[in-house]
Amino acid sequence: MNESNFIYGVHPILEAINANKTIEKIFVLKESQNEQVSKIIKLCRAKDITVKFVPNEKLNRLTNKNHQGICAFLSPVVFHSIEELVPKILENKKNPIFLILSNITDVRNFGAITRSAECNNVDAIIIPNERSAALNEDAIKTSAGAIFNIPICKEKNLIDVVDILKQYNIKIYSASEKANKFVYEADFSTPIALIFGSEEYGIDKKLLERSDEILKLPILGKIQSLNVSVACGVFLYEVIRQRN
Amino acid sequence: MNESNFIYGVHPILEAINANKTIEKIFVLKESQNEQVSKIIKLCRAKDITVKFVPNEKLNRLTNKNHQGICAFLSPVVFHSIEELVPKILENKKNPIFLILSNITDVRNFGAITRSAECNNVDAIIIPNERSAALNEDAIKTSAGAIFNIPICKEKNLIDVVDILKQYNIKIYSASEKANKFVYEADFSTPIALIFGSEEYGIDKKLLERSDEILKLPILGKIQSLNVSVACGVFLYEVIRQRN
Repeated sequence: MNESNFIYGVHPILEAINANKTIEKIFVLKESQNEQVSKIIKLCRAKDITVKFVPNEKLNRLTNKNHQGICAFLSPVVFHSIEELVPKILENKKNPIFLILSNITDVRNFGAITRSAECNNVDAIIIPNERSAALNEDAIKTSAGAIFNIPICKEKNLIDVVDILKQYNIKIYSASEKANKFVYEADFSTPIALIFGSEEYGIDKKLLERSDEILKLPILGKIQSLNVSVACGVFLYEVIRQRN
Repeated sequence: MNESNFIYGVHPILEAINANKTIEKIFVLKESQNEQVSKIIKLCRAKDITVKFVPNEKLNRLTNKNHQGICAFLSPVVFHSIEELVPKILENKKNPIFLILSNITDVRNFGAITRSAECNNVDAIIIPNERSAALNEDAIKTSAGAIFNIPICKEKNLIDVVDILKQYNIKIYSASEKANKFVYEADFSTPIALIFGSEEYGIDKKLLERSDEILKLPILGKIQSLNVSVACGVFLYEVIRQRN
């Protein structure tokens, strides 16, 4: 635990929220009766900050100081809003690439994907509030620092994100082994967003339905199973290959 | 520790060596005076089995049984000999793909590479005796079982391996960000071997010198750093793309 990212007690946490610091998550004492804590919980709901209710022992393990029943981890990453970011990106770039990661909770996969994204000039990575890899020191390390070089948007609902992107005529491509079309057959000459899902759960059905095309990689072996960061890298390099 | 892969005591280990079981590594008591143990050490040297000399406490942590100053881990993977394997593969396939991994010690990277290799019909993976990922249960798990679907050769000297492959007119391509040529410019229509090195140390200079070509991927960002399993996946898919 990096101490600079860890805060505890009612006032420091209220201040952090009001200063719009990005809070990774908040741990609150299950049976807390503190009014200020209740106020913080309401603020968290309004701002989509994850609150976990825990027993006192958990909080005492986090700090031996007077935590007042509340502790929080700040994110070292500054998040962007997709609604503000998209028009800005489109102003400066004709054919940007957006990367949407659904259910990718493995920190090392997230790190490797971020590195590939940075190497391929991806313009933004969009992750959901829930079921996403923690953007902690491990993620920063496995991303080789790339996390700080690409705007990251943490959004409540990826379906809304896709709808916003489609309003800007950004083509949506989902990667799925169940596709009928190979990635090599797609036309990446327009602004695009690529969606990748977890190896376990794949991509949400509603995201697949909203996709302009679902694409796959040829799989010649028996295992039928690529690591998601590898698959993402191959897709991104196919975009680059086609565009050059 | 999978108990079926763990053996201890002089006789079981001698038997395993004589039965040509693949031994991952052997732990020997530093100050052992046991003649049978000395005999095993000699056998290990002849067969290039890694021997680690350890204090008694280490052995006692591995087992509370009478280990006689010697414990060993068997590899769940059966290794092939590159000299025997190459002619067999060339008999059955016109343009096989060999993958040579130099200094890739990270188990998860090794697992992801093996999965990509299996999905791309790679014919054999060649790793060195030393400085390679342990082919243990973690490697099997991260490979999604692919480790059992591709012949793996564990060889003493990768330079000798390259020389053998070249005798069979197999073209050697090394992946390095210092290359002058992009992977897309290479001709993969012949039998090929691709060499990948670790992110930290890259590929041994002597292997680079023996390569027919050194190839790179375009890197557009600032970080200049792709995960090795991602880079390997992109190379393998470029081979497949060209060949179809």
